[in-house]
Amino acid sequence: MMKPAPIDYDTVREMLRTATPDRVLRFIGKSHPADIALLFKGLDQAEVRQLFDVLFSSRRAAKTLKELPPELLPDILALIDDDKVGRLIVRADPDDAVTFIDSLPDERRERVMALLDPERQAAVREIINYPDGTVGRLMTTDFMALPPDATAQGAIDKIRERGELESFFYLYVVDDDGKLTGVVPIRNLVIAPPARKLSEMMIADPIKADVFMDQEDAARLVAKYELLALPIVDEGGRLEGIITVDDVIDIIKEESTEDMYKMVGLAEEDRVFTPVARSVKMRLPWTILNLLTASLAASIVGLFEGTLHEIIALVTFMPVVAGVGGNGATQTATVIIRAIALGELEFSSAWKAIVKQVSVNICIAIAAGVMIAVAAGLWKSNAYLGLVLAGAMLLNLGLMAGFAGAVIPLLLKAMKLDPALGSGIIVTGLTDAFGFLSFLGLATIFRAYLV
Amino acid sequence: MMKPAPIDYDTVREMLRTATPDRVLRFIGKSHPADIALLFKGLDQAEVRQLFDVLFSSRRAAKTLKELPPELLPDILALIDDDKVGRLIVRADPDDAVTFIDSLPDERRERVMALLDPERQAAVREIINYPDGTVGRLMTTDFMALPPDATAQGAIDKIRERGELESFFYLYVVDDDGKLTGVVPIRNLVIAPPARKLSEMMIADPIKADVFMDQEDAARLVAKYELLALPIVDEGGRLEGIITVDDVIDIIKEESTEDMYKMVGLAEEDRVFTPVARSVKMRLPWTILNLLTASLAASIVGLFEGTLHEIIALVTFMPVVAGVGGNGATQTATVIIRAIALGELEFSSAWKAIVKQVSVNICIAIAAGVMIAVAAGLWKSNAYLGLVLAGAMLLNLGLMAGFAGAVIPLLLKAMKLDPALGSGIIVTGLTDAFGFLSFLGLATIFRAYLV
Repeated sequence: MMKPAPIDYDTVREMLRTATPDRVLRFIGKSHPADIALLFKGLDQAEVRQLFDVLFSSRRAAKTLKELPPELLPDILALIDDDKVGRLIVRADPDDAVTFIDSLPDERRERVMALLDPERQAAVREIINYPDGTVGRLMTTDFMALPPDATAQGAIDKIRERGELESFFYLYVVDDDGKLTGVVPIRNLVIAPPARKLSEMMIADPIKADVFMDQEDAARLVAKYELLALPIVDEGGRLEGIITVDDVIDIIKEESTEDMYKMVGLAEEDRVFTPVARSVKMRLPWTILNLLTASLAASIVGLFEGTLHEIIALVTFMPVVAGVGGNGATQTATVIIRAIALGELEFSSAWKAIVKQVSVNICIAIAAGVMIAVAAGLWKSNAYLGLVLAGAMLLNLGLMAGFAGAVIPLLLKAMKLDPALGSGIIVTGLTDAFGFLSFLGLATIFRAYLV
Repeated sequence: MMKPAPIDYDTVREMLRTATPDRVLRFIGKSHPADIALLFKGLDQAEVRQLFDVLFSSRRAAKTLKELPPELLPDILALIDDDKVGRLIVRADPDDAVTFIDSLPDERRERVMALLDPERQAAVREIINYPDGTVGRLMTTDFMALPPDATAQGAIDKIRERGELESFFYLYVVDDDGKLTGVVPIRNLVIAPPARKLSEMMIADPIKADVFMDQEDAARLVAKYELLALPIVDEGGRLEGIITVDDVIDIIKEESTEDMYKMVGLAEEDRVFTPVARSVKMRLPWTILNLLTASLAASIVGLFEGTLHEIIALVTFMPVVAGVGGNGATQTATVIIRAIALGELEFSSAWKAIVKQVSVNICIAIAAGVMIAVAAGLWKSNAYLGLVLAGAMLLNLGLMAGFAGAVIPLLLKAMKLDPALGSGIIVTGLTDAFGFLSFLGLATIFRAYLV
């Protein structure tokens, strides 16, 4: 039994320095691969090599490395020589083999591929040819398929023969051409009389996905119908592979990260310990977009220099109108983006959603407007200033924030882009600009009362 | 076989108006409950009642309603009379029964509970007594447990007898006191010789969770160790229930929503179609916090009215310093919050993370500073203005955004709060205030060169 518990990190480092590989192996050998993998995160290069060798010699390296977050793999594989990486890939499950290959730089990839036997090479190439983000790229070919006229007992014998499968939830039934015709939940197999045929107990015409289906859509299918695995078929309906519920959990986590990240202009690979240069390179284009949206706001302020020079106290309240509007817009955009991601919002009900969000923002703007109007009016002893502020709040937080926050993600989706893409930067840019326009515009109209 | 495909919505509405319940049932009856549930979203009150009755009479109501997003349940159950809700709860799986009870207003809950038979009442009360957010509250008591000396064949007979279980991935082995001693993956049962004892093929001392464990922690266990179900035990180690991988998917989705929501000051219940009044009530406190942080920025601007009055052109560039700083801080906070949520960042490596994020922000600030300095210097024909802007950018986007973005979520976590809680509002408030302070402060120092 694998002990599922964190391994004492300092002991392992100490042992890697002083003990024989055998002793290290005895110490960590009973731990779950997911726990052993965590050790790699904080080791230096020499220690990574040592730990890898310990695992490799006991044929645990592939099982362990596949548990690592994918962004850590390139740095670890870079420390291992080609020959060992090749053998790692041969020993790995097919889907993990692809993950490892994907983590190698282009020219090294070819070198390592050349070390594989032709059969494995072909299998890897087939999967690697599917575009990133499709289920074909993610599936495992490690499944069990039998003909419809196989019996329950025959199936059980096959399972016994086959030995361990990476994950085994359903038995797949395929016809002579390899076409998927049904699935047998393993529970049904357990209780079936030995002579019963698979065709008599299978679920015919099961839920399946095309090899080119988007990972996110496949994950949604698995979650919606509470499946443990989803069969993946080619255009001819032939069973090519499966994706399992643990893959789906990874996809869902990734997609959530992506949503949060895209809103504020972050690339998915930009993680907490990504090297500084890489993070900078990925964030810089978004910073430039941000400079542009901020310049829009700046140029609007520039239009009102005359009014501001006359009534300098207005400057004090500019950040309030812009800041509160920006947050209102980001709130609205977040609600909309999440609803789209969870499949709760379609274009058909978009109008209803926009009206609702604008209504919420108007109510909040009235409340916030009254508060800021009273506070500013008392502070500067000028009731008109309070009214101008309240008016600007209503226009910016009430109308613009609700509208832009709801419409921008929907517009991005209509353009076939990710609804979250840069939306935070865009909506705050818009509410900054419109906030200044409405506040300074109203102030200019009523300047006679404000001086 | 259930057809997993969207049901034509308009046809159902039309049929609810014109056809007999039997015909409606024939039309939707073969569809998957997850698809039928989607119909409820857009129906009016009378139609909701009709559709419910059709499902209820064919005993599909519980299976269908449990597929709905939980925030939609209260409105639907409000339309159904007590008696039917009571029978719905009796027929539901134990965990779904609790979900339904949870969706009733307090006084109605008692009334409906009184309609249940004593046994079910006790079962529901036991689960409902566990605090919200614990696995005890979420678990199902629908599992199969046998003594260690049961044989493989004996177990198979029991499974056959029992009929359908909601989800069935493992057989649990408990001793005479009900204490969990092992689990048998159903695959092992399939290939075991009929006379083999469960104790000989079980995984002893399996991964388990205490009834009071946080849902999120339990979800992390299931994801990390790639389990299909997690047994839940009481303080005496007795098996009380299980949570399954589909619950875990729901938890992961919820938690991701929560992270995005909390950053911008949204309550989890504030969904795209939540009634306006409820959304307003939930967002208002955060708007007030936002008004306060914005007032901090405003009061700092107020300090520099003298400088601004002298050099009104400065006002134009204030939004740039604040806006770009705010987005830099939000980016950093997002990276940190996500890393904490995914278990990639602990306090032990917090310092390393802060240093890295500040470094990234300094690099970006230098690049953005040069760009804005050149643009502003040329536009206003004043190189010093460019230098002041670049300096403010370096201080605000470089130092403050990186530092606040990394530290605020860690600080919230150290205070045992959610790392995301209001972090977007706090960090943008800080970078607004500090942006104005550094820009207008530098401008005041160098005012002689700027006029």
